[in-house]
Amino acid sequence: MQFGDRILQLAYHLAQWSETADGLTCTYLSPAHRAVAVEISSLMQSAGLETHLDAAANVVGRYPCKDANARTVIVGSHYDTVTNAGKYDGRLGILTGLLAAEQFVQSGKQLPFHLDVIAFSEEEGVRFAAPYIGSSAIAGRFDAALRDRRDAKGISLAEALCEARFDPKAIPALARRGADVCAYIEVHIEQGPVLLQSNLPVGIVTAIAGNSRFGVVVDGTAGHAGTVPMNFRHDAAAAAAEAILAVERRCSRPGLLGTVGRLSVPAGAINVIPSRCELSIDIRADDDELRHDAVKDVLAALDEIAERRGVRIKSAPLLDAPAVQCSPRLQDLIAQSIEQLGVQVFRLASGAGHDAVMLDGLTDIAMLFVRCGNGGVSHSPLETVTATDADLATRILIDVLERLPP
Amino acid sequence: MQFGDRILQLAYHLAQWSETADGLTCTYLSPAHRAVAVEISSLMQSAGLETHLDAAANVVGRYPCKDANARTVIVGSHYDTVTNAGKYDGRLGILTGLLAAEQFVQSGKQLPFHLDVIAFSEEEGVRFAAPYIGSSAIAGRFDAALRDRRDAKGISLAEALCEARFDPKAIPALARRGADVCAYIEVHIEQGPVLLQSNLPVGIVTAIAGNSRFGVVVDGTAGHAGTVPMNFRHDAAAAAAEAILAVERRCSRPGLLGTVGRLSVPAGAINVIPSRCELSIDIRADDDELRHDAVKDVLAALDEIAERRGVRIKSAPLLDAPAVQCSPRLQDLIAQSIEQLGVQVFRLASGAGHDAVMLDGLTDIAMLFVRCGNGGVSHSPLETVTATDADLATRILIDVLERLPP
Repeated sequence: MQFGDRILQLAYHLAQWSETADGLTCTYLSPAHRAVAVEISSLMQSAGLETHLDAAANVVGRYPCKDANARTVIVGSHYDTVTNAGKYDGRLGILTGLLAAEQFVQSGKQLPFHLDVIAFSEEEGVRFAAPYIGSSAIAGRFDAALRDRRDAKGISLAEALCEARFDPKAIPALARRGADVCAYIEVHIEQGPVLLQSNLPVGIVTAIAGNSRFGVVVDGTAGHAGTVPMNFRHDAAAAAAEAILAVERRCSRPGLLGTVGRLSVPAGAINVIPSRCELSIDIRADDDELRHDAVKDVLAALDEIAERRGVRIKSAPLLDAPAVQCSPRLQDLIAQSIEQLGVQVFRLASGAGHDAVMLDGLTDIAMLFVRCGNGGVSHSPLETVTATDADLATRILIDVLERLPP
Repeated sequence: MQFGDRILQLAYHLAQWSETADGLTCTYLSPAHRAVAVEISSLMQSAGLETHLDAAANVVGRYPCKDANARTVIVGSHYDTVTNAGKYDGRLGILTGLLAAEQFVQSGKQLPFHLDVIAFSEEEGVRFAAPYIGSSAIAGRFDAALRDRRDAKGISLAEALCEARFDPKAIPALARRGADVCAYIEVHIEQGPVLLQSNLPVGIVTAIAGNSRFGVVVDGTAGHAGTVPMNFRHDAAAAAAEAILAVERRCSRPGLLGTVGRLSVPAGAINVIPSRCELSIDIRADDDELRHDAVKDVLAALDEIAERRGVRIKSAPLLDAPAVQCSPRLQDLIAQSIEQLGVQVFRLASGAGHDAVMLDGLTDIAMLFVRCGNGGVSHSPLETVTATDADLATRILIDVLERLPP
């Protein structure tokens, strides 16, 4: 097992820089985050890559093609984390890329393209409530208005960059040209239980799901829990309960996911019939039509509940992000590598967003999911990957890169 | 309309003392509360009653019987309020009693008992999270341990009493002897919509409902809203939704009320499957067996939901207060008065607790509910009573007192 143990060791190594004494929290441009960037640079240099830290704090390590005019294949993922994170979310994609590139350096294997391993600086969106800062810069999709976005302490993104000696004005120039890039490949832990339950180490991502989000407010009528007969009530929480089950029921059809993650009766009291209940709705599908149909049905269900119960239900759309399709050509290339390594080919959609979403449009994208242990838990210290699976993912990545046309 | 307009005027008059600039908030021993006590004393004295403020801040006004050894009939209700209260909850019972007693003073009508109009100092339990402080003292049920109970500012009940020049040690001596009291009658707004919907001005209370309360915690499994397939989920909020509807469904049978007033997913996020959901359950019935059967079925439903969904549901009992029956003899006496005044007799249970609960055991209790306007809303500035209904309630009370045997 050439790569697996080292990937786990390096993931533990990188996890030692955290904003918190216990656990791992590494948000954009925090001291921990900057230390990790330096450490990744150092690892890339040791691996023999041409390394630089760009204006968005992405760490870029290049295994150059002899033909300076060759196009570029980008592999990578992000090194920032959520609060109280796991060690593999994002970083597994950096480390598999790093070890693959190192392998090419050591073997002297020539590739018909520049290979850029990019450790994207920001994907989770924790600090500035804006995800994909690193990958959007590379993809030429950085939103300049974000420079004025402030974190919880009132520090703007531009201020945070300057303080860390990055030049916010230089970010637009990081944009790659589509003509210069021939593929983006991202290895990532699945962050779910599907591979684990299927007893499979890896899976090929078919698409990154589209996502509709709504904020929902149910307004009913307050009343005393002891004095208002049941048939006179307009209970906001009971209406919300029906809404939750309507989302669950409608999104239990194939290809869909539906979640009510936020739920509360503001200032609820044990003896007061709720006059208001607030909830969120998150609906995902790898097919946009499927998702829009589900949204339509769920909103119709809310209307029906409101009408029948004599409450008002207002839903405000918060997000309507289309699904992103992974390149069939790259999927097939990955499938061949998996088969050659004697593993069953399995395809699945990604319900979570990834840096690959930003790279879509710039170039063909592909993602390889790696089995997540502990029931598939992620965004948690309980997140695990086995050395065996990490090793396999690296070998697949190497094989794909060796066969990838320029 | 001899009494109605004056009751409304006096309710507005008393509502001018509030802890807040807008609206009415008058909690135990606040400056507003003490000013209202002084004002009620003054009104009672003006009405010709022998008046004193007792050690628990109850205001007691006596229309004495010529026979000093006669027993006592108590009429009254409370003058404290909830936060942002209505003007009639509690105070309507004081004012109807006051005007009835004044009528006897003015007409010189002799009664075969002492008539004590008591403005109880504390019923709502807002300040010290303990209700019935005033009436429990009179009933000999004051919990001495409450003297050390502290309010939100850290002031103990004993300190608050001393600061207002009441002697906490003198409270136990306020207890009346059962042999000395022949009845307790409380006029109160219904705080619900039943009389309003039935187009009736008053109703005779048959019983004050028993009340079971539970705090419920649902523990499921957190997960990413985009990565965990629906059939792999153990969603605490979806389980809670079923629990809410189970409470509603089971308690929709006659004689029951069921409410989930508190509901929240702690630190819920739009893209995270809830790992925990907390809710409260409040079940009431005027028949204890009916209530206990409903509780049993609801708890069984929680178990079934937990089992089926693979979540854990823990319910902690918070209250199991038995129903209190109103005296059939006094109910009939009130019914005769209502009939004599040409109004349809209507009986209903009280789902809310009242000072009468404390007086039960000391003596026979009776309650007369008065129609609540605005859809039956209470504990709100929107709470209303009409002068006509307040007038009728006072005339019924006078008629009952004139016919009540000693």
